[in-house]
Amino acid sequence: MTIDKGLLAPVRVGVPVESLVTDDAWIEAMLDVELGLSRAQARLGIIPDSAADSVAAAIRTHRFDTRAIAEAARGAANPVVALVELLHRAVADIDPASADYVHYGSTSQDILDTATMLIAARALTTITGDLADTLDSLGRLARRHRDTPIAARTLGMHAVPTTFGAKVAGWMQGLTHARDRVNRVLATGLPIQLGGAAGTFASYVECARAGSSELAAAPPEQIFERLTAEFAAELSLTAGPTPWHTIRTPIADLGGALATVSGALGKFAVDVISQSRTEVVELFEPTAPGRGESSAMPQKRNPALSTMIRAAALQVPGLTSTLFGTLLAEDERPAGAWHAEWQPLRDCLLLVGGAAHTAAELAAGLTADADRMRENLTITKGQLVSERLSIRLTPLLGKTAAKKTLQAAAFEAHASGRALADVLTEDVDVRAHVTQDEIIELLRPENYLGAAPALVDQALRRL
Amino acid sequence: MTIDKGLLAPVRVGVPVESLVTDDAWIEAMLDVELGLSRAQARLGIIPDSAADSVAAAIRTHRFDTRAIAEAARGAANPVVALVELLHRAVADIDPASADYVHYGSTSQDILDTATMLIAARALTTITGDLADTLDSLGRLARRHRDTPIAARTLGMHAVPTTFGAKVAGWMQGLTHARDRVNRVLATGLPIQLGGAAGTFASYVECARAGSSELAAAPPEQIFERLTAEFAAELSLTAGPTPWHTIRTPIADLGGALATVSGALGKFAVDVISQSRTEVVELFEPTAPGRGESSAMPQKRNPALSTMIRAAALQVPGLTSTLFGTLLAEDERPAGAWHAEWQPLRDCLLLVGGAAHTAAELAAGLTADADRMRENLTITKGQLVSERLSIRLTPLLGKTAAKKTLQAAAFEAHASGRALADVLTEDVDVRAHVTQDEIIELLRPENYLGAAPALVDQALRRL
Amino acid sequence: MTIDKGLLAPVRVGVPVESLVTDDAWIEAMLDVELGLSRAQARLGIIPDSAADSVAAAIRTHRFDTRAIAEAARGAANPVVALVELLHRAVADIDPASADYVHYGSTSQDILDTATMLIAARALTTITGDLADTLDSLGRLARRHRDTPIAARTLGMHAVPTTFGAKVAGWMQGLTHARDRVNRVLATGLPIQLGGAAGTFASYVECARAGSSELAAAPPEQIFERLTAEFAAELSLTAGPTPWHTIRTPIADLGGALATVSGALGKFAVDVISQSRTEVVELFEPTAPGRGESSAMPQKRNPALSTMIRAAALQVPGLTSTLFGTLLAEDERPAGAWHAEWQPLRDCLLLVGGAAHTAAELAAGLTADADRMRENLTITKGQLVSERLSIRLTPLLGKTAAKKTLQAAAFEAHASGRALADVLTEDVDVRAHVTQDEIIELLRPENYLGAAPALVDQALRRL
Amino acid sequence: MTIDKGLLAPVRVGVPVESLVTDDAWIEAMLDVELGLSRAQARLGIIPDSAADSVAAAIRTHRFDTRAIAEAARGAANPVVALVELLHRAVADIDPASADYVHYGSTSQDILDTATMLIAARALTTITGDLADTLDSLGRLARRHRDTPIAARTLGMHAVPTTFGAKVAGWMQGLTHARDRVNRVLATGLPIQLGGAAGTFASYVECARAGSSELAAAPPEQIFERLTAEFAAELSLTAGPTPWHTIRTPIADLGGALATVSGALGKFAVDVISQSRTEVVELFEPTAPGRGESSAMPQKRNPALSTMIRAAALQVPGLTSTLFGTLLAEDERPAGAWHAEWQPLRDCLLLVGGAAHTAAELAAGLTADADRMRENLTITKGQLVSERLSIRLTPLLGKTAAKKTLQAAAFEAHASGRALADVLTEDVDVRAHVTQDEIIELLRPENYLGAAPALVDQALRRL
Repeated sequence: MTIDKGLLAPVRVGVPVESLVTDDAWIEAMLDVELGLSRAQARLGIIPDSAADSVAAAIRTHRFDTRAIAEAARGAANPVVALVELLHRAVADIDPASADYVHYGSTSQDILDTATMLIAARALTTITGDLADTLDSLGRLARRHRDTPIAARTLGMHAVPTTFGAKVAGWMQGLTHARDRVNRVLATGLPIQLGGAAGTFASYVECARAGSSELAAAPPEQIFERLTAEFAAELSLTAGPTPWHTIRTPIADLGGALATVSGALGKFAVDVISQSRTEVVELFEPTAPGRGESSAMPQKRNPALSTMIRAAALQVPGLTSTLFGTLLAEDERPAGAWHAEWQPLRDCLLLVGGAAHTAAELAAGLTADADRMRENLTITKGQLVSERLSIRLTPLLGKTAAKKTLQAAAFEAHASGRALADVLTEDVDVRAHVTQDEIIELLRPENYLGAAPALVDQALRRL
Repeated sequence: MTIDKGLLAPVRVGVPVESLVTDDAWIEAMLDVELGLSRAQARLGIIPDSAADSVAAAIRTHRFDTRAIAEAARGAANPVVALVELLHRAVADIDPASADYVHYGSTSQDILDTATMLIAARALTTITGDLADTLDSLGRLARRHRDTPIAARTLGMHAVPTTFGAKVAGWMQGLTHARDRVNRVLATGLPIQLGGAAGTFASYVECARAGSSELAAAPPEQIFERLTAEFAAELSLTAGPTPWHTIRTPIADLGGALATVSGALGKFAVDVISQSRTEVVELFEPTAPGRGESSAMPQKRNPALSTMIRAAALQVPGLTSTLFGTLLAEDERPAGAWHAEWQPLRDCLLLVGGAAHTAAELAAGLTADADRMRENLTITKGQLVSERLSIRLTPLLGKTAAKKTLQAAAFEAHASGRALADVLTEDVDVRAHVTQDEIIELLRPENYLGAAPALVDQALRRL
Repeated sequence: MTIDKGLLAPVRVGVPVESLVTDDAWIEAMLDVELGLSRAQARLGIIPDSAADSVAAAIRTHRFDTRAIAEAARGAANPVVALVELLHRAVADIDPASADYVHYGSTSQDILDTATMLIAARALTTITGDLADTLDSLGRLARRHRDTPIAARTLGMHAVPTTFGAKVAGWMQGLTHARDRVNRVLATGLPIQLGGAAGTFASYVECARAGSSELAAAPPEQIFERLTAEFAAELSLTAGPTPWHTIRTPIADLGGALATVSGALGKFAVDVISQSRTEVVELFEPTAPGRGESSAMPQKRNPALSTMIRAAALQVPGLTSTLFGTLLAEDERPAGAWHAEWQPLRDCLLLVGGAAHTAAELAAGLTADADRMRENLTITKGQLVSERLSIRLTPLLGKTAAKKTLQAAAFEAHASGRALADVLTEDVDVRAHVTQDEIIELLRPENYLGAAPALVDQALRRL
Repeated sequence: MTIDKGLLAPVRVGVPVESLVTDDAWIEAMLDVELGLSRAQARLGIIPDSAADSVAAAIRTHRFDTRAIAEAARGAANPVVALVELLHRAVADIDPASADYVHYGSTSQDILDTATMLIAARALTTITGDLADTLDSLGRLARRHRDTPIAARTLGMHAVPTTFGAKVAGWMQGLTHARDRVNRVLATGLPIQLGGAAGTFASYVECARAGSSELAAAPPEQIFERLTAEFAAELSLTAGPTPWHTIRTPIADLGGALATVSGALGKFAVDVISQSRTEVVELFEPTAPGRGESSAMPQKRNPALSTMIRAAALQVPGLTSTLFGTLLAEDERPAGAWHAEWQPLRDCLLLVGGAAHTAAELAAGLTADADRMRENLTITKGQLVSERLSIRLTPLLGKTAAKKTLQAAAFEAHASGRALADVLTEDVDVRAHVTQDEIIELLRPENYLGAAPALVDQALRRL
């Protein structure tokens, strides 16, 4: 019985993140954690080296049945109890004397939380890789179109000119921010969880004192520090100052960082969709056999990649709200709030990982039609530069009169289908101050780009 | 590559709803829909009967590879295009003349939306079955404890007495409302989707006129009515008055109904959790081998079932918010909003279906400890009936004085650990109006149950 | 200190719903509820008629300071305790003998929940009025443009032709569904809340037996039925079978209905925005002085109304998720979940009420440019009817060959800027089966409208 | 017409954050921004110094009617256009020659976004102040109860012992993390917004070149750098490398940080609620006249402060999901997504600010009953230390046998009401290895605290 093979979420089918976050991957990660714990305990003399070796051997040779473990998980409301039983048995088959050192002093939450962090670390690394690729491609695009004029649109309407490079630089800015957010999470280090039944570390202390003559009289804080350090080192995670069983900030941080990436990717996608419209066609998604096809309409070349990215971005905020909500974890382990994190976090990793990979593909092959951009600029026949006229006329006519004049001219130009320059040229008040040539020059879009090209340089420097 | 085998969501592993909503089930449902369309078209003479037969044969004999279809779905951003290609080929293998009648006049959204409704109908039926079982069990429990006194708690504090039966009746009320909501969705009928590329039905009209001499001159509305009626009948769904490609009320209705069920189940669960606490222990979840065990603490018998139900209930609102958000579906098919519905809706069905089944198990075996309930009632030594004294004393002392008197007595009783009756008996103002025996009688919890037992009768009658 | 005067939510400033849901309105509604309770109790002889009259007089003459009550509300975590104290004092000033009958046997939640339902009933009535107006206006628009051809767009790309009337009919369909949802809530009746401290009705029974000789020996269920019936009648609300202190389905129902309305309005808005774009300009929002102006660009006429509607629709799902989440109300009154409903529900009423009123304004003045719609239809030079050719050619060439032929033609037509008909005419395979005239005729958009006009008739009939 | 005076949100009535985020405060902040822009432009010689002075004078003397501006905001779908008109007129009244320098080269979004950052900076500063106070109080509490044993509860059941100090240290850990998150936002600096109509800065360049002889020939990037630096300095905000009109990471960062604070506060609150229950009563909220009173039950002392904090924490995730969702801001200014941020962000600031202040009050006066904690520890008669026995017996009996033995003993002890030590003492297998005295000693809760006290030291060091 497998619920999800990716059918309902094309954005992440077959992308690298997928295999990192499957249920099987979670089983593997939990086994990595059990082994990491055994090795850390062996290194401190708490359990024999041979026990850790036997755990390693059992994991290497035994085939753990994910579905069976999932079914057994209904007993304890979490999958760890069942997994530990199987591991215990597998070790006992190989080396009976070592079996009781499996999961020694441990608790379900230590294993599952640490495994989740392992998986998150791997997934985030893939995601930052895809973001880097996306940024590289967009950097090339921005450089190429640093000065390509295009209509900036606000509330759907042509506003003023900008450059296509500056638009791309905007996407880069969002993605850079988002990548920084993820990198900060990775740099701070994803924390191991090691606290025992209720985060007091008492069971690990008990085991350490029982097993290691060196630690027999060690104070708990020393055992805590040494064991967490070894455990973290085994797994390449970070040893935090305390367990975090019901202080779920690491999960909330992941949620926040992933939602930020998702939003930055979504912004890129909605713009590509907007510029791909039949009436706009300034951008084309990369083609591929079967890409963007319709089951009904032979002429269609849908913006399939950006559609998938946007679909992911629409799903992430609701999932993130669950991850923030489960910060309300009562007592030393909550009845439900912990359990409610697992699936939404995995879904966030999948959707964002899928969207990031899809964005890399989109950015690598995105085609920009500079001619069409220039052509679209002329649709309003000069009106999208009327802000400039307004600034120029204000000191001459006064702001109110200048605005009224330009609104009237805009209205007349629109109604008659004439160019704004032509209409303004006929306006006595305007002509008293500005010549026809000046008007024409002022209304050239490419003369009113402001700092747009410089913003591209800025984005490229940040890259 | 299978992402989800249920490891991270024990609430729905192995429960009946699970097999109804897998990716494989979606493939099957989409094939059911393609076949339903072929049969409906054959019945109207639009395609030969043999074509529908060949579609049926191909579906029966060909093995569709869900994962391969999922991977191909990245091309069109939806899985239908790839599925149709495979079905076309499978029919061609059997009966080349019929292959081109596959998906005749159809569009991806017609197939996927109708399949989704098929699946939702099946899942909802399972859910209402589990709700009915839950209500039956709770009905028995409520009847048994119609008059069992228990402390009602508001903001965590003992407030006044009620009966355990009345608490159970409250759960029943929520579940009955929720079931009614689902039944209304089922009664209104889950709608087929049949509109062609953009909901105009033009392609079906074109095909109908080409294929059926009878319909060659029929007006479009007649073809619409006849074909949608046949199609709906084939699939036991409802033929709505119009396509709903971007009018996604059916999805929002499902989301709302499922969130209501989820909340009603969650309310049941949080109460069981609250009453299972070590300090309260009025309720015990049903036992089963391995149920509620901890990986660390041998004495533990965790409320695993209600924990799983609550975990589900914490996840559903975020998913539902996505389903309401995607009502903003622009144009005739949105670039992303449609695609963002699939996974959240499936997750809602899974979580709610799992929670409903788990609740049926919980309700069937829930044990109530009436003695402990009575014992807990005495914790405040009469204070939880002080409202009654307040009502009785108000006409005698005035409301303000009565309240002050009772608050002072409550404070003193709490501080000294004495019974409220004893303290009040010593109060001259009180004793001027009420005898000691009256006070004792007034403060008996079982004498202040109000309509609680009657509310149980009411709930049982509704059942 | 007033936080909100509407500055950050222009969608609902000055619209009718606003004055119905202010904090002052809530105070008034709570006073209405207190009076309704007094009158109901007086009618049953539980309190003297004069007491109810004095409550009425006190409410009429006393000025309740909303802000002071809000500040005092921090004591009890709800505003009722403070309000009741003030009302008690105000009645005592007029008629000391009646003061203690204020809030007789009642509890905060009874008052606040019932007041909330009063307010919701009023707000929903306004909303359905605005939906009716919107539907009327859209009905006229749909009739006028029943046959106006327009490009249907899927994933932003021209797909096939439809009519603008059919688009409008789609909006109507969503709004009709949504209105039905609200009407069902109103028809089922918004329920009073009357249960006393923990929903057992014990305090009301106690008061009834103390005050009314007729009810002195009445069984609790009879007192429950009679008092709730009178109370409901006073307030024109519905007397449910039970209290619903922690069974919050009525709130969830409101949330679901409002989110459905919000989504239907949002769909209307996103389409208007899409069709208002400078490159599309098929629709114009109604003009008004200052409407749609920019602070910078004199030429701008932004789609301000649909922007405000969409902004509201983006906010509602998050708020609704809170309302579904708070169904998890533990015990007999939860510590926080109840309190978390108030503000989100009010915000939903405000946003949806504002959006509905704004939509009525938008629909009343929306201008459609049929010429521009026709012109946009020609952008693809026939390609948006290629589905029809595909259906026609499939039986002649086979589906695969037909698709390949049409894709190739579409590609060539696009590359060369020629009409699809011209390219196809040159195709030997095509010409073997279809004449040039037939091709031209087949590719006329107005010949491929399917049931679009009939769908308009259907929507108008439903109206 | 004022909608919100705080009636429905007691958590934030009268707390410091409230006055910082009112609509009036937003008006003031927008005027601060306009003045900041004028001063920055004057400093660069773009406008005369006298113009900036007149703007200052007009702001000082003119009374801006927030409600009237809110009403006018419906025209442009944002309040800036109306505010600028009023400011223009107010300056004209004082100094006609300066009026046209108001909002010089500017656009609505520059003003509103920058004002929002000003307000956020002020609100966050208040919030971190309240978090610091809360942490100080909790630090004292943790120190006092460093070694006070208490039952750790997992899934509502006594699990193992911990110390109350360690619980408090957990709250501190969450609040410290959350404060760090906010401090990081403040340290990175809240960014000004200055980009002109579409983020190209063209209008500011135009104005700068027109007004300042020094800048007449300056390249755009130089004008950008100098003007944004001056503007940021005026407002004590940060000058980012680019405008962020549709790259809304600053808003998402605020949302994420606020949700993290909200969750950390909510965790504190749910624990206080859990430990305040009538059956637990380990904690008491601080008393105050009227605090925690019920309108019906004289004996009640509800945990009102933690209830309000939790109510806030239940509302924030839904609001945050909207703030993450609006990252999908199409083009150069979206039609709705920008407008959908304002109210949710303000609500988050209000709710979190209110919760933080309430938490400071709660922490300052929270009373812990150490005796009751010790008493509750004994409820299970030793069972909550059975994990320790399990660890001790495992090497002696084997893990499986040890677990079985202890489960059986736990069952028998529970059934018979006897102490676990007594039951175990009778077990032959156990007694073969451990003496009765050892068992008794092993089962003493205070001997199994692990690193709990050390975790307190750790938290205090971090403070």
